[in-house]
Amino acid sequence: MKIALCQINSTVGDIESNAKKILDFHHRAVSQFGADLTIFPECALPGYPAEDLLLRKNFIQKNMDCLKELAFQIKDSFAIVGFINKDKNGLYNSAALLGSSKILELYSKQALPNYGVFDEKRYFEPGQKTKIFKILNIPMGISICEDIWVKHQPNICVKQSKLGAKILINISSSPFFAGKFKLRLNLLKKRVKESKCPLIYVNLVGGQDELIFDGRSTAIDHRGNLIALAKSFEEDIKIVQVESSKKSNLSFIKVEKNKEELILEVEEIYKALVLGTKDYVEKNHFKSVLIGLSGGIDSALTAVIAKEALGKEKVIGVTMPSRYSSNETLDDAKKIAENLNIKFMRIPIENLFKTYLETLTPHFKELKPDITEENLQSRIRGTILMALSNKFGSLVLTTGNKSEISVGYCTLYGDTAGGFAVLKDVPKTLVYKLAEFINKKEGKEIIPATTIKRAPTAELKPNQKDQDSLPPYDLLDQMIQYYVEEDQGYKELLKKGFESGIVSRVIKLIDSNEYKRRQSPPGIKITPKSFGKDRRMPITNGFSQF
Amino acid sequence: MKIALCQINSTVGDIESNAKKILDFHHRAVSQFGADLTIFPECALPGYPAEDLLLRKNFIQKNMDCLKELAFQIKDSFAIVGFINKDKNGLYNSAALLGSSKILELYSKQALPNYGVFDEKRYFEPGQKTKIFKILNIPMGISICEDIWVKHQPNICVKQSKLGAKILINISSSPFFAGKFKLRLNLLKKRVKESKCPLIYVNLVGGQDELIFDGRSTAIDHRGNLIALAKSFEEDIKIVQVESSKKSNLSFIKVEKNKEELILEVEEIYKALVLGTKDYVEKNHFKSVLIGLSGGIDSALTAVIAKEALGKEKVIGVTMPSRYSSNETLDDAKKIAENLNIKFMRIPIENLFKTYLETLTPHFKELKPDITEENLQSRIRGTILMALSNKFGSLVLTTGNKSEISVGYCTLYGDTAGGFAVLKDVPKTLVYKLAEFINKKEGKEIIPATTIKRAPTAELKPNQKDQDSLPPYDLLDQMIQYYVEEDQGYKELLKKGFESGIVSRVIKLIDSNEYKRRQSPPGIKITPKSFGKDRRMPITNGFSQF
Repeated sequence: MKIALCQINSTVGDIESNAKKILDFHHRAVSQFGADLTIFPECALPGYPAEDLLLRKNFIQKNMDCLKELAFQIKDSFAIVGFINKDKNGLYNSAALLGSSKILELYSKQALPNYGVFDEKRYFEPGQKTKIFKILNIPMGISICEDIWVKHQPNICVKQSKLGAKILINISSSPFFAGKFKLRLNLLKKRVKESKCPLIYVNLVGGQDELIFDGRSTAIDHRGNLIALAKSFEEDIKIVQVESSKKSNLSFIKVEKNKEELILEVEEIYKALVLGTKDYVEKNHFKSVLIGLSGGIDSALTAVIAKEALGKEKVIGVTMPSRYSSNETLDDAKKIAENLNIKFMRIPIENLFKTYLETLTPHFKELKPDITEENLQSRIRGTILMALSNKFGSLVLTTGNKSEISVGYCTLYGDTAGGFAVLKDVPKTLVYKLAEFINKKEGKEIIPATTIKRAPTAELKPNQKDQDSLPPYDLLDQMIQYYVEEDQGYKELLKKGFESGIVSRVIKLIDSNEYKRRQSPPGIKITPKSFGKDRRMPITNGFSQF
Repeated sequence: MKIALCQINSTVGDIESNAKKILDFHHRAVSQFGADLTIFPECALPGYPAEDLLLRKNFIQKNMDCLKELAFQIKDSFAIVGFINKDKNGLYNSAALLGSSKILELYSKQALPNYGVFDEKRYFEPGQKTKIFKILNIPMGISICEDIWVKHQPNICVKQSKLGAKILINISSSPFFAGKFKLRLNLLKKRVKESKCPLIYVNLVGGQDELIFDGRSTAIDHRGNLIALAKSFEEDIKIVQVESSKKSNLSFIKVEKNKEELILEVEEIYKALVLGTKDYVEKNHFKSVLIGLSGGIDSALTAVIAKEALGKEKVIGVTMPSRYSSNETLDDAKKIAENLNIKFMRIPIENLFKTYLETLTPHFKELKPDITEENLQSRIRGTILMALSNKFGSLVLTTGNKSEISVGYCTLYGDTAGGFAVLKDVPKTLVYKLAEFINKKEGKEIIPATTIKRAPTAELKPNQKDQDSLPPYDLLDQMIQYYVEEDQGYKELLKKGFESGIVSRVIKLIDSNEYKRRQSPPGIKITPKSFGKDRRMPITNGFSQF
């Protein structure tokens, strides 16, 4: 028996296109590879996560209608497809076994994640039954994503094995963060060892707003060996040959040599950022993107990612020099655009800045220049990019990184103005690693060494350096990890040896800038906890860490 | 026995101040009114909803420490206080009975809402036990908010009654929307009739980001009569005298005549908007607010609400005329400021608009003027307001209404720039009703008749009228109600008699403007479904209604 792991990139809501894609992959797996059974990810048909679209009756109906049509098309082979089921009690995150032009079996997810980015208890009722069914006489157990992550014993894999399953199948839409693949692989191996059953894991691939699904569907034999691994961050079909054994278990033999290699963490993050950008732009039908190129490392990295995602024709760099821009940064901005061979525009903001000052100074009551004048420059740039966006229909990509966004070292409606924040979850220290990775990978200086080496500066007043206002980024990024990602408190940070003055300043900055994050564009989650659905802090918040 | 319904306004996270307030109210109720038992709302101690603060260990610990301190202070009387409890399985949304300097009893909420604005399953484990306890020899049943809303029979009130409860107590933090009070009152009466037990309902009051809690705590006697009603949208103490009867039930006699009257829907909405604005500004420690006064009805209404919430000294109106502003609207802007006696600034944007056009036109490739130039004016105004905000530390209130925000008839980073959106959930037709209500209430033209009568216009190009781009607001607002608030689809709207061309245009506008809403400031929920936590739509969304 041949099983095809069909790792597809669905689009949330575009049910008809998803159905068409499922059928295409199914036919290809059957005709090209001789598959008997194809397996598609969790919610492959409606897309994942469909969020409040799930509250629309016509959305659910469409997904059920399309499932029936799919079933009708699948005759002499089998397919397992993730969809939304419905009964009088509510909705279910379900899998259907299709074959003989019918829906043969149904399974509904029992463990509904409702933490982090997940809201599944908002929408779904839990399935009640662990069950197995036979395909071509082989008893199989099916589960959906979270079902195999829950810790209660006996877990679903053990239960299915006891019910007589000889293969376990898990379909998932498992959101990516850096390093999750290893956790997942260890978990899958553990489940195999506990249940003594081989396991096929089919994961979604693609970007959906904040989330990336990294694919990397796997097959693990009954000994716990990884025998097949599908591509990372790309659609793929992986064929696994199943041979029935006279012993209690089945074992796998893969058809082809497994070419996929484990990738390094920095490369996996780069690929995630590229896929996230590509899918946001393409699934939302933008023809091009605009990036404010300052000559600094964040905008340079954003431009590299955009070019990789979309091609050089679709990326426009815009440099907007002010009276505080140095020749060096302007040269670097130009150099980056040249290196990437993208379109480059230069729109100086001096006249606008002057006109704002003339307009506003009479109202400023002789108060000294402060953050106001700095923000003005940033907002002029935001307004220019948005004007170009309005005129040409391009999406503005923002360039701020997680370190800045954490402490509010950014201007609301200024450098945060744009539709998608590529580096929103990338701390500054990782920005550097990514820049070095890119130059190494390309074997030349795509991002100029001067850009990498220059002390970070917003260039919004004379001789400004980030480090005048912020602690060194290596310290800051550690504090952000502890405070934001791990929810540790002031006292715990002190115990780690950070200086109390710095810790309290950083915590106050993070807490008091929630309002900026609430109005910032969505960006790609690459850490265990990103800003967005993952971290739901009140703006009005009287809690003090001190 | 005297019971005090202590309807307080907690601040999320400010646990120490909340504890102090609880103790103050308790002492006042005991010393001034002779209360034997005081009752405080759900999560009165940590504030509600605390969202992801609940994931912080030190937050939970602080709330438990403060509960213990509170308990220590309550000696010869009793108090029921909402707080967060914790055991090895997780967190609980709980009530504690305090007395004799101890925590005497605990109850944990069993029904955890996880729909609409609620995320309680993200944080809490459900309590397992329906229980009753005796206070001064009277057996009482306690429940928390959602516990009494669930439909399963027998409901908690019936169960508690069967266990011997002679009074039922429900503590709530029940988010307001217009008309909810009636639903709630009917529910409470129904529960009394089913259980044949009098019911005391203590609700939170105050604003927390998007949410308003309207207070209106109630006592209902065993016959189902409303005998006590606390104030709406204000803190209050209401005393209820309980007399033990020889029959199976107890009945209440209220101490004072109940002065609160039922208020009209438009007035209740006005009060909610005032409280929401006041609490957002004050709990976030802003000293003043800035409002762009165009002379139109939305900004006029926003200014009236702000003045009512904060007082005239704290409201600054800014008019920013352009080449397209008419003398009539400018006169109206000034008149509104005069009528409210608020500070008024005039900052023309013509020079800035000209400078932007000069700067950008060379890059516009001779394309005709379009939405770009309109948005520029709006973004100039947003930038000016933000500059004043930066310079003087004032909060910018945005003035957009729900109709505009639904269809994206607004400029991102332009008129949507600001910290709080007062009318975000108020449809345009309701804006008119509120304006009329205000003038009637004040007995004079606070909002000029010319402002109310003028056909709505953004004044961003010559002779522009909202109705050139949008259907009439009475039609639009109905469609928004059906499509956004009730999740009805295209076909259902057609069945209601709307013209298909208009319906499809409106639906497309609503769907395609999700990205703008994602970046807009929080605003006050007054309908059953607002934009924000209440409606979680994907931006990337391929679902078509057609």
